[in-house]
Amino acid sequence: VSAELTAIVGATLIDGTGRDPVPDSVVLIDGDRISAAGPGTQVPVPDGARRVDAAGAHLIPGLMDANVHLVAAIFPDYILQFEGRYEELALEAAQVCLAAGFTTVFDTWGPTAPLVAVRERINRGEVPGARMFVAGNIIGFGGPFSSDFFAADDLIADETRARINEQWERGVGADLMWLTADGVRERVREYVETSGVDFLKYAASGHAVGEMHFITFSAEAQRAIVEEGHRAGMTVQAHTTSVESLRMEIEAGADILQHGNLTGQASIPEPLLDIIVERQLPVAALYYTAAYIAWARENKVSSTYNEHLDHNNRRLIETGANLLLTTDGFAWGRAIRHPKLAKYSDGPDFGINLGDAHVVWLKAVLEQGMSPMDALVAATRNPAVAYGHPDLGTLEPGKIADLVLLDADPLADPENYLRIRAVWKDGAEVDRDALPDPRVLTEPA
Amino acid sequence: VSAELTAIVGATLIDGTGRDPVPDSVVLIDGDRISAAGPGTQVPVPDGARRVDAAGAHLIPGLMDANVHLVAAIFPDYILQFEGRYEELALEAAQVCLAAGFTTVFDTWGPTAPLVAVRERINRGEVPGARMFVAGNIIGFGGPFSSDFFAADDLIADETRARINEQWERGVGADLMWLTADGVRERVREYVETSGVDFLKYAASGHAVGEMHFITFSAEAQRAIVEEGHRAGMTVQAHTTSVESLRMEIEAGADILQHGNLTGQASIPEPLLDIIVERQLPVAALYYTAAYIAWARENKVSSTYNEHLDHNNRRLIETGANLLLTTDGFAWGRAIRHPKLAKYSDGPDFGINLGDAHVVWLKAVLEQGMSPMDALVAATRNPAVAYGHPDLGTLEPGKIADLVLLDADPLADPENYLRIRAVWKDGAEVDRDALPDPRVLTEPA
Amino acid sequence: VSAELTAIVGATLIDGTGRDPVPDSVVLIDGDRISAAGPGTQVPVPDGARRVDAAGAHLIPGLMDANVHLVAAIFPDYILQFEGRYEELALEAAQVCLAAGFTTVFDTWGPTAPLVAVRERINRGEVPGARMFVAGNIIGFGGPFSSDFFAADDLIADETRARINEQWERGVGADLMWLTADGVRERVREYVETSGVDFLKYAASGHAVGEMHFITFSAEAQRAIVEEGHRAGMTVQAHTTSVESLRMEIEAGADILQHGNLTGQASIPEPLLDIIVERQLPVAALYYTAAYIAWARENKVSSTYNEHLDHNNRRLIETGANLLLTTDGFAWGRAIRHPKLAKYSDGPDFGINLGDAHVVWLKAVLEQGMSPMDALVAATRNPAVAYGHPDLGTLEPGKIADLVLLDADPLADPENYLRIRAVWKDGAEVDRDALPDPRVLTEPA
Amino acid sequence: VSAELTAIVGATLIDGTGRDPVPDSVVLIDGDRISAAGPGTQVPVPDGARRVDAAGAHLIPGLMDANVHLVAAIFPDYILQFEGRYEELALEAAQVCLAAGFTTVFDTWGPTAPLVAVRERINRGEVPGARMFVAGNIIGFGGPFSSDFFAADDLIADETRARINEQWERGVGADLMWLTADGVRERVREYVETSGVDFLKYAASGHAVGEMHFITFSAEAQRAIVEEGHRAGMTVQAHTTSVESLRMEIEAGADILQHGNLTGQASIPEPLLDIIVERQLPVAALYYTAAYIAWARENKVSSTYNEHLDHNNRRLIETGANLLLTTDGFAWGRAIRHPKLAKYSDGPDFGINLGDAHVVWLKAVLEQGMSPMDALVAATRNPAVAYGHPDLGTLEPGKIADLVLLDADPLADPENYLRIRAVWKDGAEVDRDALPDPRVLTEPA
Repeated sequence: VSAELTAIVGATLIDGTGRDPVPDSVVLIDGDRISAAGPGTQVPVPDGARRVDAAGAHLIPGLMDANVHLVAAIFPDYILQFEGRYEELALEAAQVCLAAGFTTVFDTWGPTAPLVAVRERINRGEVPGARMFVAGNIIGFGGPFSSDFFAADDLIADETRARINEQWERGVGADLMWLTADGVRERVREYVETSGVDFLKYAASGHAVGEMHFITFSAEAQRAIVEEGHRAGMTVQAHTTSVESLRMEIEAGADILQHGNLTGQASIPEPLLDIIVERQLPVAALYYTAAYIAWARENKVSSTYNEHLDHNNRRLIETGANLLLTTDGFAWGRAIRHPKLAKYSDGPDFGINLGDAHVVWLKAVLEQGMSPMDALVAATRNPAVAYGHPDLGTLEPGKIADLVLLDADPLADPENYLRIRAVWKDGAEVDRDALPDPRVLTEPA
Repeated sequence: VSAELTAIVGATLIDGTGRDPVPDSVVLIDGDRISAAGPGTQVPVPDGARRVDAAGAHLIPGLMDANVHLVAAIFPDYILQFEGRYEELALEAAQVCLAAGFTTVFDTWGPTAPLVAVRERINRGEVPGARMFVAGNIIGFGGPFSSDFFAADDLIADETRARINEQWERGVGADLMWLTADGVRERVREYVETSGVDFLKYAASGHAVGEMHFITFSAEAQRAIVEEGHRAGMTVQAHTTSVESLRMEIEAGADILQHGNLTGQASIPEPLLDIIVERQLPVAALYYTAAYIAWARENKVSSTYNEHLDHNNRRLIETGANLLLTTDGFAWGRAIRHPKLAKYSDGPDFGINLGDAHVVWLKAVLEQGMSPMDALVAATRNPAVAYGHPDLGTLEPGKIADLVLLDADPLADPENYLRIRAVWKDGAEVDRDALPDPRVLTEPA
Repeated sequence: VSAELTAIVGATLIDGTGRDPVPDSVVLIDGDRISAAGPGTQVPVPDGARRVDAAGAHLIPGLMDANVHLVAAIFPDYILQFEGRYEELALEAAQVCLAAGFTTVFDTWGPTAPLVAVRERINRGEVPGARMFVAGNIIGFGGPFSSDFFAADDLIADETRARINEQWERGVGADLMWLTADGVRERVREYVETSGVDFLKYAASGHAVGEMHFITFSAEAQRAIVEEGHRAGMTVQAHTTSVESLRMEIEAGADILQHGNLTGQASIPEPLLDIIVERQLPVAALYYTAAYIAWARENKVSSTYNEHLDHNNRRLIETGANLLLTTDGFAWGRAIRHPKLAKYSDGPDFGINLGDAHVVWLKAVLEQGMSPMDALVAATRNPAVAYGHPDLGTLEPGKIADLVLLDADPLADPENYLRIRAVWKDGAEVDRDALPDPRVLTEPA
Repeated sequence: VSAELTAIVGATLIDGTGRDPVPDSVVLIDGDRISAAGPGTQVPVPDGARRVDAAGAHLIPGLMDANVHLVAAIFPDYILQFEGRYEELALEAAQVCLAAGFTTVFDTWGPTAPLVAVRERINRGEVPGARMFVAGNIIGFGGPFSSDFFAADDLIADETRARINEQWERGVGADLMWLTADGVRERVREYVETSGVDFLKYAASGHAVGEMHFITFSAEAQRAIVEEGHRAGMTVQAHTTSVESLRMEIEAGADILQHGNLTGQASIPEPLLDIIVERQLPVAALYYTAAYIAWARENKVSSTYNEHLDHNNRRLIETGANLLLTTDGFAWGRAIRHPKLAKYSDGPDFGINLGDAHVVWLKAVLEQGMSPMDALVAATRNPAVAYGHPDLGTLEPGKIADLVLLDADPLADPENYLRIRAVWKDGAEVDRDALPDPRVLTEPA
């Protein structure tokens, strides 16, 4: 018997595969892996195992968020105020996630170097934190001080703009739109080889600017990006916000459709939806509660939240699309009120803060017809599979031992995901009370 | 002998085909057509013909501009100030062109209804003016009060914006970017059927916004647009401003590459240039004089006028590309100074005013290595062929009788294109001194 | 007996002096004057008089608005769209006012020439319309395309800006702030002598720009302006928006305190209020209904509508200040929605449209404690006295015969001011159904 | 004989009083004071004195700059990037000044707390640096993120704006413009009592916004500010930028006219100039070289640099006004290029960097007719007297021993002020090579 053997005994086990809950279960953790999981009647507790009494509790896999931004410095003031401290912000956010039961998160846009550095420190065990996978820049987007975010060219010195933008762009910024597919390929290859990122995300379409909407890369350029990612063994996802860019992304071979449900002033055509469902293409879809949607409608925040989004979101659930929990969240730790966010954030249930934003998503998908079990799978197994990490996401023998023990049934009420008794990551229990440490942006609960 | 027979006798004939000039020529006009053209020794003057003594003069085809904007109301103030009077502006501009020897112009962006109305009045002979061919909106672009031009959404009431934009957009505005290729096709078809335009122009790429650049329509949508135009017997051209959109336009089958020389932060790749030259795809290319380029460089107007443009322009001439004279001109009739134009217009040789802007173009192409004869062909035969009007553009028997008689040799000095003795359109001499009438924006010379 | 003698018989007379209503009254109109007014028992109806049976109706003086803007072209789009037609707008607005019972209005900011021209046409009897008194520019303010309103210097050509601004500024624009008191005096004198205006309005303080607030003219310059106006027999009023500018205006000798109740982030100090009340300085004060104030508070439109305004408005009524009805109204004739107005106009009871805006004012003052009779006097006698027109404003013998006959008691409900049976101006009955004619901005009821 | 006695022997002494240079001088420093100064023939060198051989050199008083801004973080990016490090910036700047021979500087706008802290550290001898006198905020101006500088309210969170602005405003911000004179007085009194500043500066007029210009405080409020400063024994100066605000400042009793030469679109009236000259009111006037003025004229930077400024500057010299050297300088240490500064800084001789900006000023005043000796006095004695520090500014017995030893004659060429051999402050020689330390914004020479 391994000295490190732990047995979690008596919990209702919901293992992330979608199978029925198992009451009175036993789950054995051996080192960083699960060695057994099942009904207590079938899984004996070895002698010498450290025994965790979990009677009355619910045991689920460590949660996974398919879309976070751990460096919360995304507004002009925060970007500058915290320059040089982005690692601190990233670490704080990774710890906020871990404390909330998210053992793995996928950072889909941020400054590459500090994110990679924090990922390494966590992976080396120097500091606690959610397991991080990092995309760095969205290929084709400029940095924070660019037209894609805040041009600010009348306020910020060129040298400041360049210095900041470079921390995000890393050679795969908006200037790629000037290049041929070959030119794009060359830049992406260099990025793949030198940046240290885990997966790629590219812009198949732009951020809407006013009434405009547009395609960022030609079909050929998109294929070049996907090929370069795959060549390096990376998953590749695309940011899309229109029906045509969504189609192009799929044809280019993207592995994950990042906010594939946002198609602006049109709904996803049924033939395209058929493809998404048949191929079970992972869709990292943002969902909003009925309360938020009603507010957005009344306040004419229609650029994003409109009948087409509503339609897409319902159809994706109805048709059994492969959905991933995604929050697009940040660790501000409080209701930040920023002029650039205000037109969205004034609404109710605006889930943007890591730590509880996922409950908003879970509520919203339930409201729109998803079953509680499917929602749980969307928050565990689906992201693991979509991102190519088959040893994560479920509580089955041989898998990495990432677990969350809840005081109440998560299938009964999404709020119960917050009633955490314990979290294990890589087989070790997390000292949640100590997280985050140090605090930079967040405040004590 | 027709009562309408006119013989122009003694001029040096430069017939627009690129053939050597013919001294001491005779050109016969019978009705609205040329019935003979050649050396006086070979073309006898019929008895009874009205005889025009042209000894010492040069006779060339009526000029053609591949890219004008006859409605000069393109700034917020002008748009509003002249609302309801766009026909007046269009007519004035068509008359300014005609007086300058342009018997045919291609209007590639403007409010459809007034342009079509003026075209019809000219075609019916009710008013004098250059022969007009009209594209209406650039498919995929919003109207003047949109992000493509002047958003102005903090200054202009929504109802005003909508009212103005609709006069340009006519159902094929920027909202097409939200649609699938089929959706785009449907809108374009309706536009073709109802708008009264002569040819199509679509946006393969956008106006650059800040550092951004982008593709407007997917390959499939571009093909749909081209097919719909061709189905209706129209030529189709695309606005492109990057190497990738240029390639896509060509692959979609566009007939004319509108400012195909503008590729922003990259030069046209040689393989793409090879295709352009081999297929002799018409390129309506803006050229700038050395003086202007030097000024633009010094004043960092680099978004448009940079080494890549320089390179493209020289290579297009060197490789013998099929170039069309184009001014992108307006009939303001004077040095307008507008904040939206100032960063360009402060330079020397900024040829934007119809009536003499073409001389700037001609100077510029000569400076960059084109022969005077090729330049003349670019201003006559090439646009006629490119736009599918084989009975225009040259002085050959059977062609429409559009002619310009010059007091000095246009091959010797581009300024000589301004030394006009007479202009015939459709076989009738134009009363140039009476044009334009009435004046709205222009002032007496 | 004059052939023009008219007797209005049987109405309840409310004569504008504040005296009790007189039931069963007789009012005699002889030519353009009132020759008698009183109880039917005391005022016999002369033989031969045209008899108007007014039993059951209420008869009040023609209404007076102390602050209107008859040229409604105040947004960038309207200014340009209607340039050259400002007279039409002014006339339409003057007719809207007259039809609503306003026989006299004071235009306190607008383009001088068209306003003066319309005033003259009305005075000559060529067209119907409210009696107009005109201030032209607010001395010290720039025209519409200036920092005081819409700088728009990135959208509007300099020549357009200059052309438009000059129509408002007439030599007394914002550049006066660069001058000494003597320099200001000289300019004002020329304005008085050449502009044709009836009274002066100057800016004692600026429009607030962001957090800023400021004083426009020094005490010496303000005195110079007042003296020049008085020298020419004009009343002089000031635009003030802070407590200090209000004090300075009073010390400079201004005759009317235009929106003297707006003091921004501070309340009128009691000592200053004492002076205003003791001297019965006329205050043209904007009032808002409780519904609007609640909305403004909730929507943080606090720059203007805050607790200090509330306090001032209540105190002015409590202390018996000399208040004038003022709407700051325009004749758009419908709920215009303009980005520059939207943050105010989205609220309930936003009375900006001439024709019914005054009912909002009347409701608001009643809500805040004014008696119905005082409100009526504020809309009739007070403006007449304040502006120096003692032959207007009341229904007493010898006064100009401006009268409104109402179907219901205006003292019972402010809405009853809209139940107009007939209007007389200068003794002649107005054909209200024919007004306005032509319509430009307004639509048929 | 004091152990601390130092004798500077053999230099040409220019003592700051305006008296003729004294060749072969001896100056004795006893502790922090000058004990003797005069011709070597009259001032014997005491035995035991440390002897500094200064033959061939020129000895002048420590220089004084009447207007610097030691915290160079004044652009949005710098403000945020260096937040928390303003003390470092202030210290670096004070050391840059000292190394350049400025033993005393007057900081007329900046964040109060870090400036006061650095002043104290320097005064306590903990760190080297120019002697600092600090005004803190310009009374009546908002902080950096306000309409007076960069509103930025669409980019910066309210909490960030408030946090930053408070570091500058300290209760005497732009909201004072809403108050009565008594209200202003109360706030200023609290500022005087609690902020730790040395002198007061208030805004008699605003920064020009667009075409506008304006008066910040009424005459009464200005007097209140001046009285409160004087009550506390402080000098009081005003920021003025128009003729009327200049007059008001003088009438309010201001001790120093800060950029009293900037009067915008008008010249200083002669009667006002007479007062300035007669009373010898200190004018801290910005001067520009002919090269810069020519450039500004050509590039239409006319808002500030126009014929009126030219006129004022020449007249101030011609009439013998009491001028103070002023640079308005910052310690960026290099040619910073910021969008908010670019329209000024692109010109030649744009002296904004502390360390050599004063040479530009000196050149400019000489060009405009000042004598080299008067220029030296403007840089030494005049600021000392104006700011009420009679023990500074000249090299006379009893004065503080601040001295600069130059390798070449400063009266022969302003560049010679840069040829520094040694600097003494408070009688101690400065280790100029060690300054600044640490470097933050500046780079090694």
